[in-house]
Parts: sequence; C-alpha cells; structure tokens
Amino acid sequence: MTNQTNRPATPLLDRIGSPADLKALTDRELRQAADELRADTIWAVSRTGGHLGAGLGVVELTVALHAVFDTPRDKLIWDVSHQCYPHKILTGRRDRMLTLRQKDGLSGFTKRSESPYDPFGAAHSSTSISAALGFAMGRELGAPGVGDAIAVIGDGALSGGMAYEALNHAGHLKKRLIVILNDNEMSIAPPVGAMSSYLSRLYAGAPFQEFKAAAKGAVGFLPPPLQEGARRAKEMLKGLAVGGTLFEELGFSYVGPIDGHDMDSLLQILRTVKVRATGPILIHAITQKGKGFRPAEGRSDKGHATAKFDMITGEQSKAPSNAPSYTKVFAQNLIKEAEHDDRIVAITAAMPDGTGLNLFAERFPKRCFDVGIAEQHGVTFCAGLAAAGMKPFAAIYSTFLQRGYDQVVHDVALQNLPVRFAIDRAGLVGADGATHAGSFDVAYLSNLPNFTVMAAADEAELCHMVATAAAHDAGPIAFRFPRGEGVGVEMPERGQPLEIGKGRMIHEGERVAILSFGARLGEVRAACEALRARGIDPTIADARFSKPLDRDLILRLAAEHESLITIEEGAVGGFGSHVAQLLAQEGVFDTGLRFRSMVLPDAFIDQGGPRDMYASAGLNAEDIEAQVLRLCDVEVIGKRA
Amino acid sequence: MTNQTNRPATPLLDRIGSPADLKALTDRELRQAADELRADTIWAVSRTGGHLGAGLGVVELTVALHAVFDTPRDKLIWDVSHQCYPHKILTGRRDRMLTLRQKDGLSGFTKRSESPYDPFGAAHSSTSISAALGFAMGRELGAPGVGDAIAVIGDGALSGGMAYEALNHAGHLKKRLIVILNDNEMSIAPPVGAMSSYLSRLYAGAPFQEFKAAAKGAVGFLPPPLQEGARRAKEMLKGLAVGGTLFEELGFSYVGPIDGHDMDSLLQILRTVKVRATGPILIHAITQKGKGFRPAEGRSDKGHATAKFDMITGEQSKAPSNAPSYTKVFAQNLIKEAEHDDRIVAITAAMPDGTGLNLFAERFPKRCFDVGIAEQHGVTFCAGLAAAGMKPFAAIYSTFLQRGYDQVVHDVALQNLPVRFAIDRAGLVGADGATHAGSFDVAYLSNLPNFTVMAAADEAELCHMVATAAAHDAGPIAFRFPRGEGVGVEMPERGQPLEIGKGRMIHEGERVAILSFGARLGEVRAACEALRARGIDPTIADARFSKPLDRDLILRLAAEHESLITIEEGAVGGFGSHVAQLLAQEGVFDTGLRFRSMVLPDAFIDQGGPRDMYASAGLNAEDIEAQVLRLCDVEVIGKRA
Repeated sequence: MTNQTNRPATPLLDRIGSPADLKALTDRELRQAADELRADTIWAVSRTGGHLGAGLGVVELTVALHAVFDTPRDKLIWDVSHQCYPHKILTGRRDRMLTLRQKDGLSGFTKRSESPYDPFGAAHSSTSISAALGFAMGRELGAPGVGDAIAVIGDGALSGGMAYEALNHAGHLKKRLIVILNDNEMSIAPPVGAMSSYLSRLYAGAPFQEFKAAAKGAVGFLPPPLQEGARRAKEMLKGLAVGGTLFEELGFSYVGPIDGHDMDSLLQILRTVKVRATGPILIHAITQKGKGFRPAEGRSDKGHATAKFDMITGEQSKAPSNAPSYTKVFAQNLIKEAEHDDRIVAITAAMPDGTGLNLFAERFPKRCFDVGIAEQHGVTFCAGLAAAGMKPFAAIYSTFLQRGYDQVVHDVALQNLPVRFAIDRAGLVGADGATHAGSFDVAYLSNLPNFTVMAAADEAELCHMVATAAAHDAGPIAFRFPRGEGVGVEMPERGQPLEIGKGRMIHEGERVAILSFGARLGEVRAACEALRARGIDPTIADARFSKPLDRDLILRLAAEHESLITIEEGAVGGFGSHVAQLLAQEGVFDTGLRFRSMVLPDAFIDQGGPRDMYASAGLNAEDIEAQVLRLCDVEVIGKRA
Repeated sequence: MTNQTNRPATPLLDRIGSPADLKALTDRELRQAADELRADTIWAVSRTGGHLGAGLGVVELTVALHAVFDTPRDKLIWDVSHQCYPHKILTGRRDRMLTLRQKDGLSGFTKRSESPYDPFGAAHSSTSISAALGFAMGRELGAPGVGDAIAVIGDGALSGGMAYEALNHAGHLKKRLIVILNDNEMSIAPPVGAMSSYLSRLYAGAPFQEFKAAAKGAVGFLPPPLQEGARRAKEMLKGLAVGGTLFEELGFSYVGPIDGHDMDSLLQILRTVKVRATGPILIHAITQKGKGFRPAEGRSDKGHATAKFDMITGEQSKAPSNAPSYTKVFAQNLIKEAEHDDRIVAITAAMPDGTGLNLFAERFPKRCFDVGIAEQHGVTFCAGLAAAGMKPFAAIYSTFLQRGYDQVVHDVALQNLPVRFAIDRAGLVGADGATHAGSFDVAYLSNLPNFTVMAAADEAELCHMVATAAAHDAGPIAFRFPRGEGVGVEMPERGQPLEIGKGRMIHEGERVAILSFGARLGEVRAACEALRARGIDPTIADARFSKPLDRDLILRLAAEHESLITIEEGAVGGFGSHVAQLLAQEGVFDTGLRFRSMVLPDAFIDQGGPRDMYASAGLNAEDIEAQVLRLCDVEVIGKRA
C-alpha cells in the first residue's frame, strides 16, 4: 500500500492472514477484530471510493461467520455482494484493497476467479439463496469439498421474486441450508434491545427439533416479570413486513430478530445453528447500513456508494464536470414531456436515483412507481398501464432489463403494447465491471417483432429520443444511452420527435462509410479527424435506429462506398447483424462490399476506466482508424489484425 | 358448426350472446347457465382437443365474474389463460369454438386482438397480477374506460416469483384490485364444507373496513355451538401452504377459502367485494380441475391437455407415430448418461411431463428437481449445483428459458459454470401459437461469452448432443431441439460426444452450399432432392454448432461455392448473423459472395399446423428451393421475392 496517511492502527487485524486465524481468538478479541476491520474498511474506501454503507453494516456478521464456519469448505454467498469488502479484507485480499474496482485490481463484488472464499459471484440482486441451495443439494448428493451453504441476503433483495422462488423450493426440499436475512431497512424500526436479544438467545439455546415450539410458546417459558416484554417482542416480530410466519409457512425455521452488531448474540446463534440445524433455517439479523461511520449514518442513502472521501468529514472528492450526465438529461426531458402529456408515467425497479427518476418523482409523485427489485413485474406492470391507455416509461439499466426479458417478449412485444424502455448504462460501464455491462440489449430487443429500438449518439440526441418515445403510440419502443456524462453538445430547448427508422448523415466523405449506432459516434469523429490528416475522408452517418433500419440510407452508403463499417456498443447479433441481414437479402454482397461490423468482443471485460474497457474491446478511435486503414489497404504497424 | 353429434342441449346458454345477457338471469338460472356451459365446453374440446381440465375448474367462476362485474369495462385477466374456453364461449366466440387452436381459428389463450373481453393476453404463467395492477393504476390516474381490474391466478402460478413481486407492489400501493386465487392443487385437502363456507359468508357480510377485524375475531362473533367448527376452519386456513396470513402480510385483505363451484357463495362474495372493496383483496377459491367430466377427474393430470376424445369414455384419438418424440429421445439418453455418471442431475420448472424428466425422475428420484414455475431460481440453482461440481441439465422450453435469461448471463455465462441447457420446443410449436414459439434462444445465447450452443438436426443427433453436453465440463452448453416427433433415422445405441465447434458435411454438390443449423435439415434435403431433378445439386452441411462456429467448414463452403445459404429455426441475430460476422471479418464479402440467411420473419406467427406455420415463415422445402433457384438466376414463377 502506497499511502498510509491516517491509516488506523489495527494490531489484531494485522495478525489475521486468513479466516483460520480467527479460530484462535477469544470472543472479546473477535469483537476487537470487528472494530479494526470496520476502521480498515473505511480507510480503504476513503482512498478508492466504492460501496461503503453495505459493508459497514455487516462487519460483525462477516467476522462471526468466518469465525464459526469453515470457509472456504463452507460456502458463504453474499447476495449482490457489494457488502463484501470486509469479507475480502479477511480472506487474503487486504493488501490489494487499494486496487478495488480499478483495472487489473480487485472486483467490487465477489468473484469466483479471485478467491476460493468467493464460491459464487454476484452483483445482480436476489440470487444467493438459489445458488446456496445448489451447493446444499450438491453436498447432499455427495459432491466433495462442500460443507454448509450460507446465503446472506438483504431485505431489499427479498423483494426480487427469485428469492421467493428459492425459499419456496428450499422449504420443499427440507435440507440443511442457512439463510441470513440482513435487515437494514430504515423504515422498519429495528427491534433490537435486551428483550428480543434475550428471546433470540432463548431460541438458540433450545434443542432444534423443539425450535418451532419454543418460538411459539416462548412466552409461557419465561419468568413472569419478563412475559410482557417477550409478548411485545413477539408482536414486533409479527408486525415486520417480512415477519417470521412468512418464512415458516415456506418451510423455514426462523430465528430472530437479532442485533446484527452484537457479536456475542451472533456467535452464540451461529454456533448453535452450526451444531443443530437439520433443515432450512433463516436468521433474521437487524443491522445498520453505514454503521460506525458518522457521515454515512447521517445520509439518507447511508453511504451506499461513494467517491473517494475525507475520513473525518465524509466529504467526497468528485471531478468537475462540463456536460450533464445522460441520466439527468433523460430525467429532465421526461419531465418536460410529462408536463405536456398527463398520460406519461415512469417506472423504476428500486433505482430511483440511478435512473434519475427521483427528479421525476419530485415533480410528479403520483405518476412515478418504484416496483422494488422486480424487473419482471415492472415490465408487465408497464404493459398493463399501456393497455389501459397510459404511456409508461420503464427506466431500467440494460443489464437489469435482462431480468424482465420474457415479459418484454411475451407481454409487451407480442401484444404490441406501447411501453417505452429507457435503457441506461448501455455498453461498458466502468468500475462496476462485467456484471453491470449493458452488452446484449440491442441484440435481444432488435429481433422482437413490433419493437422500435434507438440509441443516442449524444445527449442532444437523447432529448429527441425521449420526445420520440413519448410520441410513439404504435408499439413498444426502446432507447439506450451510456453511463456517465454527455459530450457537451448544444442542447435543444425541448426534444423533437424523430422520424421512425431514419438515420442522419453527419459527414459526406468517400471510399469508406462509417455507420454508427449509439454513443461511439464521438470516437468515430475522432478517428475520422485523424484519418483526414492521412488523406482519407470517410463518410459518417448516425443510424439512430437498429429497428426499423434506415434501408435507404444503408443501401445508399453501400452503393456509394467501397467499404462500410458499422459500430455499436453491443455484442454481435445486434445492429451490425441486422445491417448484414439487409445487405445479404438485397444482394449487396453478391458483387462485393468491404463490410465490417465492429461490436463488443466475445469476452466479459473486467472493470476499469471506460476508456480502458473500450480499448480492450477494440472500439476506441484508434481501433476505428486502424479498421479504416486496413480497408483502404494501408499498412498498419503495431495494431491488431 | 358442422358436427352437432352428441351435442348437449343448452337452452339457456343459447340465449347468452354476451355477458350483458347474464345480468337478466336469476341466481338459479346462473347455476343452470354454468351447467350448460360446462357441457358445451366438454363437447367443443372433445372435437378440437386442447386444454380441458383448467376450464372445467372455473366454469362457475367464469359465469359469476361476468354476471357480477361489467366486462369489458372491468378488466378480467386470466393467468396463463388456458382456462379461458368457458370465458370465450360466454363472450361472443361460441360459434368459433370448433376452430380452437387451428390455423386462422381462435387462440387457445386470451388474446387482445381477438376480443375486447380479453384485455390482456397470456400463456406464460404468473403475469396476471402485474397486468391487473397496471390497469388499476391506470384507472386511478384517470385512464378512460377502465373499471375494476381482476386477476384470476392458479396456485401453481403463485410459485412464480413475479406473482410475489406483484402482490408486494399492490399491497404497497393500497388501491382497489381484485385477485382471485383459483386453488386446485390436489395435494391440499380442500377445506370446503358448511363451516368454512359459513365463515366466508360471514366475512363477506361484514362491512369492508371491518373486514380484517372480522376475520381475526370471527370466532367470538359466532353463536357458541359453532365456535369450535369455526376455530377448526381458521386453523385449516392457516395450515394452507398459501394461507391467509401471507397475503395479509403483503397488504391484501383475504377472503376464503370458499367453494369455487358453489355459485351462491361466489355471487354473494363477488357482489360484496364489488360494492365494498377499497384496497387490494384476495379471494381464495377452492376448485377442482376437470370438474364435471368423470374421465378427467379420474386422471392424475385432471385432463390438463388433451387430443380429441370420446365424450363418454374420455378416450383420446391420437395419430399413430413412426418415430419417437424428441422429448423422449432426450429423456432416454439423459438416463443413459446418468447411469454412467452420478454427477448428472436434472432440473425442470414445473414441466416434468413436457420435458420428459418424469422418466428421469422415475429412474433417479433423488437426482431430479422440480423447482416450480420458477425459471429464474431454476437456472441459478443449476449454477450453484455446477459450482459444487455436479453436472446439472436444465430442461426448459425455449420460450420459458426467456424467464431465466439474466440468470443465464449473470450466474452461468459470466462465471463460466458448466450448466447444460436442454432446450425443448425450439422453433415454431404448432397449436400453442406465438406465445410458445422458441424463436429467440439461438440469438440470445450465441452471443454470450463462454457458451457453446448446438441444435439437433434429427433425433440421432440429439443423442450425440446429450452425450456431448454430459462430457463438456469447460463451460455452459446448450442444445436445442424441436417439438414433436423425429424423422425416423436410425438411432445409435448410445450417443457419442461430438467435437466442439465442428459441423458435418452431408452432401458435396456444387455452385450453392446450404448450411443448416437444427431441424430444418429435413426440409433442406427435400429441397435439394427437387433441385437435383432440375439439374442443380447443392452442397448440404449441418453446422451443429452456432457457437463456436466451424470456421474451417464455413470458409471452405464460401470459397468453393458461388452462393452460401444458412437456415435456422430462429430469428435474426442467431446462427446466420454469426456466420455473416465471420464472413465479414475474414473479408469474404470483399470480393463477392451470394450469401443469404434464412431465419424466422419479423412477425409473431399465429397457431396452426407446424407445416403451415413454417410456410408462413418461409422456411419449408419449397422456400429453400425457391431461394436456391433465385441465386442460380432461374426465374421462379409465383414465389415470393
């Protein structure tokens, strides 16, 4: 580590090379290890930025789990896994924490290829119970090297339907499986405190086969002065949105709620569970997101994700920006449209800030819906709204829309319902890495009958595409735009609806035509600038639509040039493939055309700066320039073939 | 209607032209109308085949809903909607019932384009609550012409996660919404009978704002001799897998369980709900699948889906078959592989019969998992199993795998876990129509890094592909095969693993090469047979793999022929697009190649015989022949361009 400024002293943590070292510690030392781990996590994230609040909420849980269970033989699976930083520090990756979320550094999520202590990677929500159940059933069938399976899942992730599917299946199978509900929702008053903690210890102390009985009849077993308090604790338990009964109805034993920051409770319960559990069990731990870092505790998002920050004040250092973010441009333009059309409504799947819909919700609180981490429902909810005559905008990241794909096909496209999809985070996304890349939406949407699919070349185009989507009532329509800031172009007062299926000519050149779909247009311009210095002046066009294609434009470009290059921030099967299909059908290849389609490569690209990632992908200006030079039979030295 | 043999007398039903006519009937007449509707449904399906059991279970419910509510202003949404035949008979489509599931006839599902009484189409499970909530919120925001929103959902569909997502959201929004749980699961003893019926009437009779209180305190309100019975009824209610408390915890009022065949109860409860409901309410109706048709009642599947049958005996008339079904070939070969490898396990999402895994489960009961209608969980469960070192085969129809798409990308492909996907019902599927078409899997899988994707040309190839998948531990692998029977080729004793990424030459001809991916190979052979009679002898090859492509084979075919045609039972973006990408990258188009990619057209194709559907798609032998003739510059009369 290069910069040790303000680094807190962590004498005990410094002795922990792997979870095995925790086994030798006393409970008191484990408490101290947790305190040091918290301090070290804050210090590391203050230097790298990243997800802070979630990790701080599970520091004690992380220490207790590794102290009690035998990782990596026991499979510890973190749902979403942005809370895994303390886990990474404990599992041999402490010396690489300052490389977090950087190119060639540690991933911000768990990752199988990074460590045997990460048995299952995650980043999308609600997968952990399914994966853990897979490990558990593998163990039951004799898979070697598999001990316990433990899923740690937040209350938010439990709004995702697949978590219920998994609980339902686990309850049916009745095999040993440990699910820890990490409940940090601020709207639920945490019933921590002496009495419920006592009750939980009472549960944990009872023989497991009597566990349900103990939970149900606990009041009667208590000494009389404690009965009233115990009754209140049980009522609180029932009153929780995800209370014990629901899990018990699904076949789980239920322990909790317990204080997820009380190391003694955690250790006692986990030790009891480890010895006695025979079937599926859910431990309900109440934790506090951002725990132990005052600036995070005081913020409404509890320090969910952060840039580098000052450890004392929590103040974040952000680079000054010249252009508005695409997200903000989308939100502002949707608000403009909604001011003129009261049929416009907006839907987010638990990402109001990330999608910019928090701004829309401020302006039109009744017309904005947060459906939870529930893209499947969200898409079909939009289909219902559209069938009722509304104009729903589903604002969902490219990578998360994959969750609602069947609903897009079956409920939206097949019924030709005018749902508008605002697809943020299209293409490569930077520090979040491969799990969050929006690589496949152009391919998986553009071959759906009835669909119209657009991509914004810059933030002004995005304004027009919001207006286009608002005006388009003939069927479903999607527009995609990248993460981050625009390119600083002049912005229209209000977007104007585009003609459906028509691209635009940017520059009339010769020999080579470059047809760009989406935000690589800036790189195309830069490449052509460099090429003109070498005497090559390519034509540049912006396709705007991958469906329907601008047939006239494409066939004209093909007819008037020796070479045609398409480029997009997406995998093969998308825009370039549709262009190739058109060219083939029209017989353009029959007599020869130097056609190339530049797409994302056949690889998942790890996190890094967006520019680095696009360099790996071969979609930057240099790559475009090299492609043109090759097509013009100019020898290119030192470039990939 | 042409054939009136054995048609039951339905004097009252004959007077019902639309649901409005039900309003004039007395309750006693409504009971009679239901009886006649049941008889008419049985008669119609005995002549057409189709889904029978589900419709017979909701006859009374269908009559009661249309009698009490104001359809089509009130939006009645049937989940899955294979239970909609009685609904179709009542809503102006009785005279077309004999065209059911046939080309140009009525769909076997609800369909917006077919009737204003079908406000939302369905066929995939668990969508109805989301759609109904969309209508309800549209109404709240002032959408004209939208009254009540009513979802009718089966207990099976409730295992799908998106139903929970929708309940969770509806409970949060607190607006009027009616969900009817049509509970016909045989494993749950139906708590019908005088007392629970009395209890339900008591609920329904109480003012709605007191409803929860009435439900909770009902025992105290009853006359003493009834208290014990009422207590028992309440306990039964709590003991149900999907008991009242779960729905109440999600914010719904709960009514039930009620006897879904007791017209008086249904009418009374629906009338009360119509007048008094203010928020979301769930009515729990217990029904009997196949009710009223003895041969169905006696079968384990309760007459789920049927061919044409004898109305007295229930005996089905099925055409004799020469070749085994692809489904059975898959199952038998998987069993063979599993006999040699105890790491092989199999997973179905509530389709053990449809996927053939019922046979696997008989042989290996502990190694077969039915996860429920839960493809999301199912895929990630497989990923967990694979991470534990098992060899999971996920047997999921192409159209339903769309439900698990994000899990395929994020949990399987990204982690390069060797999950095997056995994709049945690839391509067009016949009577089930557009909702069940397997059109998109080649496109949405073939661009995923790490994936291997195969398609079986015939049933012998399927044997080899099962063996290939069993042997392939390097990453995820998928093989697709069509619905229906094989072509009658000789079968190997046991499949042999294929070389990954290698196709096979079928026939060496000249001028034109046809590269087939999947089961159109038979049509290709037929087309070439006809072409040879005209003096044209195309080369035929079977690609076997869409990923990785057989580069050598493809480039050789391109080099040695004037024309290259690819053909697949899938939409653009799939195999043909990957071939085009390769040809472009390799510069093959630079100097000219007559390349054509035959894919499913840009349209959803309605139900019909598979041959008819492929004729609409332009993928039959005649179409292939015409394509070759055009490429050979032979004038084709009367064929599409």
